[in-house]
Amino acid sequence: MTRLTRRKDKPHSGIGAAAGLALCAAFAGLLPDPARAAPDGETGFVLNTFAFLIWGALVMWMCAGFTMLEAGSVRTKNVSVICLKNIGLYSIASLSYYLIGYNIMYVGVDPGGWFGSLSLFYGSTADELALLAGADGAAATVIAGADYSTMSDWFFQMVFVATTASIISGTLAERVRLWSFFLFVIALTAFIYPVVGAWTWGGGWLGEMGFQDFAGSTIVHSTGGWAALTGAVILGARRGKFREDGTVRQMPPSNVPIVTLGVFILWFGWFGFNGGSQLALGSAVDAVAISIILANTNIAAAAGVVAALCVSKPILGRIDLLASLNGAIAGLVAITAGPDLIAHHWAIVIGGIGGVIAVAGSKAMDMLRIDDVVGAVPAHLFAGIWGTLAVCIAGGGDFLTQLSGILAIGGFVFVASGIVWLIIDRVIGIRISERAEALGQDVVELGIEAYPEFVAIPDPDDT
Amino acid sequence: MTRLTRRKDKPHSGIGAAAGLALCAAFAGLLPDPARAAPDGETGFVLNTFAFLIWGALVMWMCAGFTMLEAGSVRTKNVSVICLKNIGLYSIASLSYYLIGYNIMYVGVDPGGWFGSLSLFYGSTADELALLAGADGAAATVIAGADYSTMSDWFFQMVFVATTASIISGTLAERVRLWSFFLFVIALTAFIYPVVGAWTWGGGWLGEMGFQDFAGSTIVHSTGGWAALTGAVILGARRGKFREDGTVRQMPPSNVPIVTLGVFILWFGWFGFNGGSQLALGSAVDAVAISIILANTNIAAAAGVVAALCVSKPILGRIDLLASLNGAIAGLVAITAGPDLIAHHWAIVIGGIGGVIAVAGSKAMDMLRIDDVVGAVPAHLFAGIWGTLAVCIAGGGDFLTQLSGILAIGGFVFVASGIVWLIIDRVIGIRISERAEALGQDVVELGIEAYPEFVAIPDPDDT
Amino acid sequence: MTRLTRRKDKPHSGIGAAAGLALCAAFAGLLPDPARAAPDGETGFVLNTFAFLIWGALVMWMCAGFTMLEAGSVRTKNVSVICLKNIGLYSIASLSYYLIGYNIMYVGVDPGGWFGSLSLFYGSTADELALLAGADGAAATVIAGADYSTMSDWFFQMVFVATTASIISGTLAERVRLWSFFLFVIALTAFIYPVVGAWTWGGGWLGEMGFQDFAGSTIVHSTGGWAALTGAVILGARRGKFREDGTVRQMPPSNVPIVTLGVFILWFGWFGFNGGSQLALGSAVDAVAISIILANTNIAAAAGVVAALCVSKPILGRIDLLASLNGAIAGLVAITAGPDLIAHHWAIVIGGIGGVIAVAGSKAMDMLRIDDVVGAVPAHLFAGIWGTLAVCIAGGGDFLTQLSGILAIGGFVFVASGIVWLIIDRVIGIRISERAEALGQDVVELGIEAYPEFVAIPDPDDT
Repeated sequence: MTRLTRRKDKPHSGIGAAAGLALCAAFAGLLPDPARAAPDGETGFVLNTFAFLIWGALVMWMCAGFTMLEAGSVRTKNVSVICLKNIGLYSIASLSYYLIGYNIMYVGVDPGGWFGSLSLFYGSTADELALLAGADGAAATVIAGADYSTMSDWFFQMVFVATTASIISGTLAERVRLWSFFLFVIALTAFIYPVVGAWTWGGGWLGEMGFQDFAGSTIVHSTGGWAALTGAVILGARRGKFREDGTVRQMPPSNVPIVTLGVFILWFGWFGFNGGSQLALGSAVDAVAISIILANTNIAAAAGVVAALCVSKPILGRIDLLASLNGAIAGLVAITAGPDLIAHHWAIVIGGIGGVIAVAGSKAMDMLRIDDVVGAVPAHLFAGIWGTLAVCIAGGGDFLTQLSGILAIGGFVFVASGIVWLIIDRVIGIRISERAEALGQDVVELGIEAYPEFVAIPDPDDT
Repeated sequence: MTRLTRRKDKPHSGIGAAAGLALCAAFAGLLPDPARAAPDGETGFVLNTFAFLIWGALVMWMCAGFTMLEAGSVRTKNVSVICLKNIGLYSIASLSYYLIGYNIMYVGVDPGGWFGSLSLFYGSTADELALLAGADGAAATVIAGADYSTMSDWFFQMVFVATTASIISGTLAERVRLWSFFLFVIALTAFIYPVVGAWTWGGGWLGEMGFQDFAGSTIVHSTGGWAALTGAVILGARRGKFREDGTVRQMPPSNVPIVTLGVFILWFGWFGFNGGSQLALGSAVDAVAISIILANTNIAAAAGVVAALCVSKPILGRIDLLASLNGAIAGLVAITAGPDLIAHHWAIVIGGIGGVIAVAGSKAMDMLRIDDVVGAVPAHLFAGIWGTLAVCIAGGGDFLTQLSGILAIGGFVFVASGIVWLIIDRVIGIRISERAEALGQDVVELGIEAYPEFVAIPDPDDT
Repeated sequence: MTRLTRRKDKPHSGIGAAAGLALCAAFAGLLPDPARAAPDGETGFVLNTFAFLIWGALVMWMCAGFTMLEAGSVRTKNVSVICLKNIGLYSIASLSYYLIGYNIMYVGVDPGGWFGSLSLFYGSTADELALLAGADGAAATVIAGADYSTMSDWFFQMVFVATTASIISGTLAERVRLWSFFLFVIALTAFIYPVVGAWTWGGGWLGEMGFQDFAGSTIVHSTGGWAALTGAVILGARRGKFREDGTVRQMPPSNVPIVTLGVFILWFGWFGFNGGSQLALGSAVDAVAISIILANTNIAAAAGVVAALCVSKPILGRIDLLASLNGAIAGLVAITAGPDLIAHHWAIVIGGIGGVIAVAGSKAMDMLRIDDVVGAVPAHLFAGIWGTLAVCIAGGGDFLTQLSGILAIGGFVFVASGIVWLIIDRVIGIRISERAEALGQDVVELGIEAYPEFVAIPDPDDT
């Protein structure tokens, strides 16, 4: 079973994007076109649009999940800064994707091309504005011209770019400078992610090759993971993390319940992430598909938890809540490339292996002496690669094509991110001062402590 | 007014369940069949399916609510373990209900029978798979064969079994062993709850008797409550809870804001719990019914808060936030058996009495020297019994039938849970060591403290 | 472009409200009537009703956001009480708006009038009850008589009144007495807010004048802000906040991550707040409008964060997380009066200026020596005024009309709130004792500390 790409199959006016119908024709007919099968044009339009909005709102909520996960995972002295990074990155992503990113990713991408329009801003079509102004017959024109409203699609795509950026802040926590991080977020959300998106969901060359990534195991999660990994290598580890004698210092989470809350938020929001990626709700086939997607998403996450729980003792030496939580995320990432293709018992396998990868990957990162504060690289990058390959299990993707996509996107993001990180480092520096690292970013960069009234145990490395 | 049972009124292929239509005929016609009244077959199918998914996602979110409620209610030394129990129980419930539980509860239950199929796994029907594969005319076949997709129903029912398990972890917190608890969860979610469900929503003997429990005051909440109570009696109280001089030691919550957050999450999620239990959205009668359900759900919870607040001073000797929070839950549990039947002013009465029951019930538990860490037995079991009887107020149920259902389910769950707890205790033990109880489960069972950087006041009983 | 008022355009039976159609006629035709354009009567009815419920549930969730925001913002000694105030105010608002408030606001308001019915209770129409009872043809009658179910509208309006009350608890935290606050909430939710609502959304004189406030920048947020400001002036500042030497003592938030969580919850819930205020989902025009509304809501909030972040250093002397968080809220409040009218780049401007207003307004409040614990007056009142005027940018409102509405509502709420606060003060007092302020409300009013196990740094003013 092959799926439609995420590409919108209709151009919209106002931006000048008229290209890109040819590609879609190649995919058409393999599945009944969802919106076309809708019982009624206007009802289908309304349902498709509403689905983008409500599922998109759930994906926006995932940013709160990343925030809680990261705020609980860092030490108390860096909690306020990580909160600011998260609400800041979501805001920056919203604006830069509106100003630039969406156009690069979706507007006027040539079939098989590399990127779309460099125009600024985005907005409703002229037909939609006519509809809002009450023009006669405008509803029919709008419905004939698109399966959902322009801005509902923008909203749904926008929350995905924010997710990509969220992955990075966790890995680099406790040592990356606030403004340097924000500069990187601008580059990621305005250019790097949109280019990856143009290659695939936008209808570019990887999409044309047949690369399959339903909701973004690679396009979203590995992209974020590669950018995080690149940053972690360039930034270096937190002071005291890897001791000269080769041992690794545990720097445990400062607030475990909010880490747990964060994972629950992500799990909940992932129903929107994967369910909304069906891109339609206006027909029975969509309804059936989304049901399967949500069931598989849930089952894979559950399997990730159970698998990580079972292997945490042999691999890490303890029954580990944090491993289980990361196992949930890894299970979710792994199923994201093909939640609609996989039979439910395969979802157990895919999610479970994802959970094992998260635990073993964390161990491997420690051995490689790469410091990833929240384990985002194992959960999002390693499990994302696994999930993208696992699509082939159901025959939904060709192994070499999938591998090509993984390598191409990985190579591009690694190089582009590296260049951006190095430029920022050269110009303003990316690492906080030793003093800031010792005293904490909250005091030095913000002047706002996260828990000012609680007596804290001093950090042994900082006294 | 009598309602349709929660039973699916169409068999589905792939599992071999062909039985069970006769019962439904007995209920049909009393209310206009919701999906049948839909304006259009496909639109109705889509709306019904989507309702299961979005309401079900809200119910899944309730697990985060239980987690926050419990993580805030226990002492700091046991917080990480309760987080692990909660994400673990949700994961286990997801898998075991997929593997076994759903089939016992819904597949091939004979009219008036005791349980369904012992087959493994569950999945989409052959017609649905044909639809996804693009077969001609498949949409019509699917819509003619069912009012919603197979897996959307599974998803919605699955989150209910997780709720049942969530109730138990709170009562038994701070003293039950992690793995023993997980074993019990397997038994509960694969067998005990599904059998109760088969008797009622699955179309078995209690459903045939006319037992009315719209969204599960008894079937979900009392089942969880009975299992919790049984466990609490067998486990015994936390060390130092009930002193030899007859006084009770307060062991206050360690983190009140997240307890409050947990209750807000539950309240929010309950709109899905009760609203989704209409099992349809495809017609005007469904829309009107769900509106009434949500209004009553909210009003009953509000009344539970206000009533608990008012009686907490006379009963407990203080104006009590925790009593008010538990009052919200008790109000919600109480209205759950008949939120569609009750006029709104009766919702105030039912929820308010629920709130009073929660407060008085907590006092009674202390007098009985049964240790319930979060007050789940009063809120879920006692208020669940009240709510199930209160259905009769609106003429929606026969008092003796309701009482029979309460007693039958209570007796079964009490005995079955007791047997399971005792077997687990015999084989691996259910209670943590005295050392673990003194030092905390987080250190002894996991090696992960919840708040490692905050200086904590030592527990007077443990030093 | 002019919009329909929020007024229901059909009377409903059971309450005796038959007035009020004439006004709506004046607005009709300017926009295609949403529900009328629906593809099918019953489908439109279902979609409109469902939209009220699901968006309304998101707005209810905002109460959890206010709770977390406030619980994290106060000092540890007052956290439990603020949690109780919040769950209490939501409960009281639910009940009083059901008993009294809704009728004053929406039932039988004369065109151009001042308030509606003083009758008690509210409920489904006779036609809806007939539909539930299975009467022949009832569905057609219900659909012909209304565009959505009666109680779905009640549910959606009810969560708005709760939002209004939530604004107040933050400003007055740490010094207002629990029961006095609850008495004020009764007055606000049963009378003050419903009267403001009757003037506007209910079809009263301000609505007739053409006052434009789509989702309530003034009607909800400024009303809450004025009531909070009035209370703050009458209550006075917290002990030690404004020193005799003219300096201001910072009283930093005790738990920054949950403040951040609170803001994310509000942002998420605001999609329901603004999106649901379209009051319909049953046609393409609604779908397009809601898409624009959600995009603008998100963009304005993002701009508020970025703007507040940029101006916090020059205005406050530090890069400030809390300013950024309040900037998000201010951006959301500012866009709320016209999220459907504004082109997206204007949303950046409106939200960004909102963010600047929040930061500068906090500074101004300090200079005026008015103590607002969470900065609610700048974010909700000042930014609400800005947003209500900003509607004119898009030509959606007349400047003088908008100003008249702001002044009329501000004057009324200021006077009415002042009278209520003074009466409560006279009868039972509104300010806690000096002892309670020193020891904390949690110990003195409740006997439940929020974090009893953590060692806290003593407050220098209290020892």
